[in-house]
Amino acid sequence: MTYNGLFEQIRKKRSFLCVGLDTDFNKLPLFLLAEEDPVFAFNRAVIDATLPYAVAYKPNTAFYEVHGAAGWDSLKKTIDYLRQKAPDIFIIADAKRGDIGNTSGRYANAFFNELNVDAVTLSPYMGKDTVTPFLQYNEKWVVLLALTSNASAADFQYIEDKNGKKLFENVLEISREWAPVDQLMYVVGATRAEELEAVRQRVPHHFLLIPGVGAQGGSLDKVARYGLNARGGLLVNSSRGILYQSSGKNFAEKAGEAAHRLQQQMHRLLKEYRVL
Amino acid sequence: MTYNGLFEQIRKKRSFLCVGLDTDFNKLPLFLLAEEDPVFAFNRAVIDATLPYAVAYKPNTAFYEVHGAAGWDSLKKTIDYLRQKAPDIFIIADAKRGDIGNTSGRYANAFFNELNVDAVTLSPYMGKDTVTPFLQYNEKWVVLLALTSNASAADFQYIEDKNGKKLFENVLEISREWAPVDQLMYVVGATRAEELEAVRQRVPHHFLLIPGVGAQGGSLDKVARYGLNARGGLLVNSSRGILYQSSGKNFAEKAGEAAHRLQQQMHRLLKEYRVL
Repeated sequence: MTYNGLFEQIRKKRSFLCVGLDTDFNKLPLFLLAEEDPVFAFNRAVIDATLPYAVAYKPNTAFYEVHGAAGWDSLKKTIDYLRQKAPDIFIIADAKRGDIGNTSGRYANAFFNELNVDAVTLSPYMGKDTVTPFLQYNEKWVVLLALTSNASAADFQYIEDKNGKKLFENVLEISREWAPVDQLMYVVGATRAEELEAVRQRVPHHFLLIPGVGAQGGSLDKVARYGLNARGGLLVNSSRGILYQSSGKNFAEKAGEAAHRLQQQMHRLLKEYRVL
Repeated sequence: MTYNGLFEQIRKKRSFLCVGLDTDFNKLPLFLLAEEDPVFAFNRAVIDATLPYAVAYKPNTAFYEVHGAAGWDSLKKTIDYLRQKAPDIFIIADAKRGDIGNTSGRYANAFFNELNVDAVTLSPYMGKDTVTPFLQYNEKWVVLLALTSNASAADFQYIEDKNGKKLFENVLEISREWAPVDQLMYVVGATRAEELEAVRQRVPHHFLLIPGVGAQGGSLDKVARYGLNARGGLLVNSSRGILYQSSGKNFAEKAGEAAHRLQQQMHRLLKEYRVL
């Protein structure tokens, strides 16, 4: 998908919601266990219910890999179903891979050809070599970890260099030269507003994928104030806040309602900050 | 496997060789394509030929994921075959994952329970949260990226903090507190001897996994001089230098010969540095 294509989705749906498909077998409604592929059955129903409100979906590959080859199949079916229902939806494989050259090329092939997603999350630790093979694919994106929202993010991401620049700031300043804004976005945890401001200064035009709203405690209003740009420039993810609103027959309906509430807040914020 | 168990393997085989199973479908001998699972058939033959000389095997998951669910099956069959042929062999899933809490726990489950490997490579970027869930498993190991041997390793790993300490040195000093030496080892590229010395100063007792010998150009003698400790403390990987010595019917024999040559050098070095 192009940069403008993504903005078009945001305008059309009045939303910058990304639904995180971190589908946990142990949290599935029990009646789904009778299905041949309960994980896919769950995802399909959640997709049907949330599609009017979401511009992106982000399956976390760990939740599928834990089931081995069968899990990989559930993931592939989920992505194929999304592509069929909504050819314009933006699909991110949250894989947090990070390898080099030869190997990174395999991952790019696995995700962009085999699975046919639009974007993959990558770790920056090994540098540019990790990213380059993914840039060979037209209209495909790398989502690079910059600032994460977990407790131990500070272990390394906040280490200051001689000029007082933190590692995540170095990651942004160095990596933004690797690719144009229509192939690179950043994972930025939304736990502190001042950091989001520091990020936006360095990458004013890039899309940011914000994982920390909902269960991880970021506030949507703060994220919008510091994160929105003229083309939206944000994808805000919610996983547990949407997926597990009910463990009954109405689980999908409740997921849809949760997504709708987020979309309504986003619509208000998109107007407030004159993106729409 | 325990720390002493790993040393026992090194003593028994007079080797610290790790065979990298980066099995590339496009480099397989053509006659193997008639097999039902050519990747597994190749791995099985390579394992049979190299097992007398190797203490560890390291499949790189990217080479399997690129084939989707079928690739995951080949990987599982390879690991099961290794376990059956050599219960004491050390198996590393070179997955370079790096996620947090909840998600990292899935990966630990996927690799330690589902695939039944001994160790997984992880990226340190997200900090301790990435590692902790893997430490719940008894006699299982984390192999943390510290210093990699690729060209762009310098992008971030060499960034100096206020005290002139490089990021990879900070990674070592901070992470060595997270786990005992029998659950944590480090990936250390072997391209420069002085860096290996800097690593050994900080983690004198840890095992180091050295990916850079052979195709990546590290010298085994230099690695041994600066890397060996009283318990060996090294696993030196070779992938392409073993796997693709011949594309004919004798591919496995040639792989065995390459492994044997490395084992002989290692035997000499283990004696020279009085590990044996």
